[in-house]
Amino acid sequence: MTAAPTLQPHLGLKTPPPLPRGGLRVMALGGLGEIGRNMAVLEFDGQLMVIDCGVLFPEAEQPGVDLILPDFGVIEHRLHEITAVVLTHGHEDHIGAIPYLLRLRKDIPLVGSRFTLALVKAKLREHRIDPVLVEVAAGDDHLAGPFHCEFISVNHSIPDALAVAVHTPAGTLVHTGDFKMDQLPLDGVLTDLGAFARLGVEGIDLLLSDSTNAEVPGFVTSERNIGPVLDSVFERAGQRLIVSSFASHVHRIQQVLDCAVKHKRKVALVGRSMVRNMGVAQDLGLLRVAPGLMVKLDEATAMPPEQVVLISTGSQGEPLSALGRMARGDHHQVTIEPGDTIILASSLVPGNETAVYKVINGLARLGATVIHKETAMVHVSGHAPAGELRTLINVAKPRYLMPVHGEWRHLRAHAALAEQTGMSADRILLAEDGVVVDLVDGKASIVGSVPIGNVYVDGLNVGDVGEESLQARRILGDEGFVALTVVIEPSTRTIVRPVHLSTRGFSDDPGAFNEVLGLVEKELKRAMEDEQVDAHRLSQVIRRTVGKWVSDTYRRRPMIIPTVLEV
Amino acid sequence: MTAAPTLQPHLGLKTPPPLPRGGLRVMALGGLGEIGRNMAVLEFDGQLMVIDCGVLFPEAEQPGVDLILPDFGVIEHRLHEITAVVLTHGHEDHIGAIPYLLRLRKDIPLVGSRFTLALVKAKLREHRIDPVLVEVAAGDDHLAGPFHCEFISVNHSIPDALAVAVHTPAGTLVHTGDFKMDQLPLDGVLTDLGAFARLGVEGIDLLLSDSTNAEVPGFVTSERNIGPVLDSVFERAGQRLIVSSFASHVHRIQQVLDCAVKHKRKVALVGRSMVRNMGVAQDLGLLRVAPGLMVKLDEATAMPPEQVVLISTGSQGEPLSALGRMARGDHHQVTIEPGDTIILASSLVPGNETAVYKVINGLARLGATVIHKETAMVHVSGHAPAGELRTLINVAKPRYLMPVHGEWRHLRAHAALAEQTGMSADRILLAEDGVVVDLVDGKASIVGSVPIGNVYVDGLNVGDVGEESLQARRILGDEGFVALTVVIEPSTRTIVRPVHLSTRGFSDDPGAFNEVLGLVEKELKRAMEDEQVDAHRLSQVIRRTVGKWVSDTYRRRPMIIPTVLEV
Repeated sequence: MTAAPTLQPHLGLKTPPPLPRGGLRVMALGGLGEIGRNMAVLEFDGQLMVIDCGVLFPEAEQPGVDLILPDFGVIEHRLHEITAVVLTHGHEDHIGAIPYLLRLRKDIPLVGSRFTLALVKAKLREHRIDPVLVEVAAGDDHLAGPFHCEFISVNHSIPDALAVAVHTPAGTLVHTGDFKMDQLPLDGVLTDLGAFARLGVEGIDLLLSDSTNAEVPGFVTSERNIGPVLDSVFERAGQRLIVSSFASHVHRIQQVLDCAVKHKRKVALVGRSMVRNMGVAQDLGLLRVAPGLMVKLDEATAMPPEQVVLISTGSQGEPLSALGRMARGDHHQVTIEPGDTIILASSLVPGNETAVYKVINGLARLGATVIHKETAMVHVSGHAPAGELRTLINVAKPRYLMPVHGEWRHLRAHAALAEQTGMSADRILLAEDGVVVDLVDGKASIVGSVPIGNVYVDGLNVGDVGEESLQARRILGDEGFVALTVVIEPSTRTIVRPVHLSTRGFSDDPGAFNEVLGLVEKELKRAMEDEQVDAHRLSQVIRRTVGKWVSDTYRRRPMIIPTVLEV
Repeated sequence: MTAAPTLQPHLGLKTPPPLPRGGLRVMALGGLGEIGRNMAVLEFDGQLMVIDCGVLFPEAEQPGVDLILPDFGVIEHRLHEITAVVLTHGHEDHIGAIPYLLRLRKDIPLVGSRFTLALVKAKLREHRIDPVLVEVAAGDDHLAGPFHCEFISVNHSIPDALAVAVHTPAGTLVHTGDFKMDQLPLDGVLTDLGAFARLGVEGIDLLLSDSTNAEVPGFVTSERNIGPVLDSVFERAGQRLIVSSFASHVHRIQQVLDCAVKHKRKVALVGRSMVRNMGVAQDLGLLRVAPGLMVKLDEATAMPPEQVVLISTGSQGEPLSALGRMARGDHHQVTIEPGDTIILASSLVPGNETAVYKVINGLARLGATVIHKETAMVHVSGHAPAGELRTLINVAKPRYLMPVHGEWRHLRAHAALAEQTGMSADRILLAEDGVVVDLVDGKASIVGSVPIGNVYVDGLNVGDVGEESLQARRILGDEGFVALTVVIEPSTRTIVRPVHLSTRGFSDDPGAFNEVLGLVEKELKRAMEDEQVDAHRLSQVIRRTVGKWVSDTYRRRPMIIPTVLEV
């Protein structure tokens, strides 16, 4: 619990004025007010630099949508001014929208660490895009137009993550990317507090910092602590063992491999992204694989179950994933047996709870023991909780703080933490997507906002599904539709054919609407007594008649689709 | 973490044989394999007794559905054999389906405690049903045909909850209802371990016990511990204060009232069920309300915000609730101001996470501080966690255990706990809805199963929405539809009117299907060259042509609805 921040929400802001000469402008096209599609745009002297370009996964209110992109509309006419896209790490919510940005201009330089760029490259290959890549490492400098970037190592749930300090004549901005402060990281790569402290002494004008876990008290548990828990599960598992985790969580997978070696089990990777990413990680020396440890899935299924561990995707309950199929008993190679053990060594992303529990229940029904983060310490978060966020602020001593990467609850909690450290409320900038922050003469402030929409990817197309289609999907998905078609002869004003009815998703009773057809015909005939009547008017008659009847009879509101055809 | 239970799931069971003379049969029509619609049916000597009759709330995969009922199909032809419905407590998942059961036979006696029956009565009044009520209290006996019931007080998140021991010539069955073992309950009513111990000594043949929190380690935190947390929030809140909770959680509300008195705030109740239930609780002396404490909402909104606390429904993120409206800024009486404090003193029911976080984010965006169970100890569960479930088994020493009230993950976890106490696996009956357990000659076993479906309430109707409609809703909701209507003259095999197209939920681009119309017409004409062609065949042509085109062009699969009208 924290004190109520005194900051006001930025509702009803106006279009921002032009950026004053010598000023630095910051605007998020995504990631503020949501967890995902992170993308910040910096502007100085007519040039732009982008930090991250990720996707957001849709909620139930965005049915049928595959992905949500940052809204590129604001920069679409300024693509030639983009000096670089700096990528802090290789998670989808930071790199997933890159293919869609490069469709607009394919030679934008992508700047990132070795592992990040390897994942980006693999992704772009699937989109048949050959990008311009600039590899950097912690401690490196990179000049992107007027943006002098300096990279700082941070610790996160994927290797090779970076924060970036951007020095401009207007001042220094530091963006943490996603980070936490695991003090015993598996690869020894710490969040470089020394670098943040040095930058703090030099002067950080504006700190953009990860808010994801701002509501969570305390400090992270080390990733390393998961090892012994996995070990004890391996120790007791007498049969098949399946571990599911994120396909990019190299250190988690490493600990599973280490357990497998110790307990003399071979390992098979299941799922396309798991195979691909672990291949990349192994090639770059980030994943240590003992010789002869890995087997293919068909070899694994032919081995005695107690001699193998499967590492699978599907930890978020995806119904089409390998684990999802196993839970329903319809995986073509793996059949769950009573006594099998499944570990979900993963987070439970908000919104996925029902899907994840469905998988757990399916596995439990088949007789498996399922171990997950609610029942054992098989997951730690990749994001800094409250104690570490306060620590960063105390170390970096920014003049201004802009909480990023979070829903409003996280942004506001982060602001409250900053106030606790002594920052005054007017130095904490609570912004949402599209809100424009200018740093001018050492002073950062909100100067306006531009409208930011949701850009939906559905199948092959981007942007053609919008709020109108989603609203229709919501109605159709909840209530179904009833379509009534009538063919009339306009000159004689007669009905040529009885009303044709077509309905889906309303009722399993095929005769549900029989009763109303006569009524519709009667109302149509009455309406056609008027010589001025037209198809539009007759459509209204159908809609009104059916709408009232179905509401009175069923208390439901299906979509009503009248069609009047004139022959 | 627990050892893998050796119990097998009961898949592919057959129809059970007739109940042997002198045997007791137990079958759940709901509540096993799901959290909700709890309903157990007992049978002895041709007579039935029902324990609880609740509703289940739908998931995203059951779009548009209002409620899910237990499947009464199995007992529909045996309604006259029901001697009583025993209600353990007044939560919706235990009493919500009563109106629908009484529609089938209205004079089934309802047996329950004073508060439970008061809530049932209020509910039935809305359905215009005047029930037969039999009030009982802990310690009471009640004879329902051959079922000799004895009631035991249990502690839960609603007052006046009961467990029931059912003595029959076949043996004794004990059903816990929902319970926990708060050792400092606000009303002093403990779960009566003495009674369970006595019954254990006398001999419990079969224990049906609440599994909801079987995955949660340890023991409950006392409800009483929430008081000081609320107090500290009241202490610091300088403006408006809103507390949201379940409308039946009398003890939670009592603690809010006590804080209000201490901090000199008046109280207004918001939400129909909150007003109704607290009225009932006050009438029965379960809620102590200081004189002059309560004000109406319009009085409250006219008072200075720091002198009032609103107690509201909407803690599960219901968009139409008072709190949901406040979060969107469209409540007609209450406007959230920066610095307001909202407490969600409630659980987060799985499946509701997205909705609840949307409300929290909406409030946070408007400048409010939102305190919820993830950030402060403002909620404790009403269900016994692992430590208490083990305790009950050790005290009651049942010969057989049947875990109830839970999804598979909970049932299996409960079974594992029982094994830890020393029960052998063959005395733990893991069943799901419809599985039939017979207690014959002191031995309980699974003897078969009957099919149990989901009975959906949608608007005024029960049962007409089934899997076919839901499947259509899921497709329509994800992809929308495209309907193509063509009018032909069958004798001449000519198209009388160009193909008419109607589409919703597919794309915001009105011309999305323009390209395919010519193709459809071409294919239709080609098909009509065949003299044998009929409307069905032409429909297939439309479906195939459009289906292929839309899949190739968009990688989407909208519902395609061809209509061929002959004039």
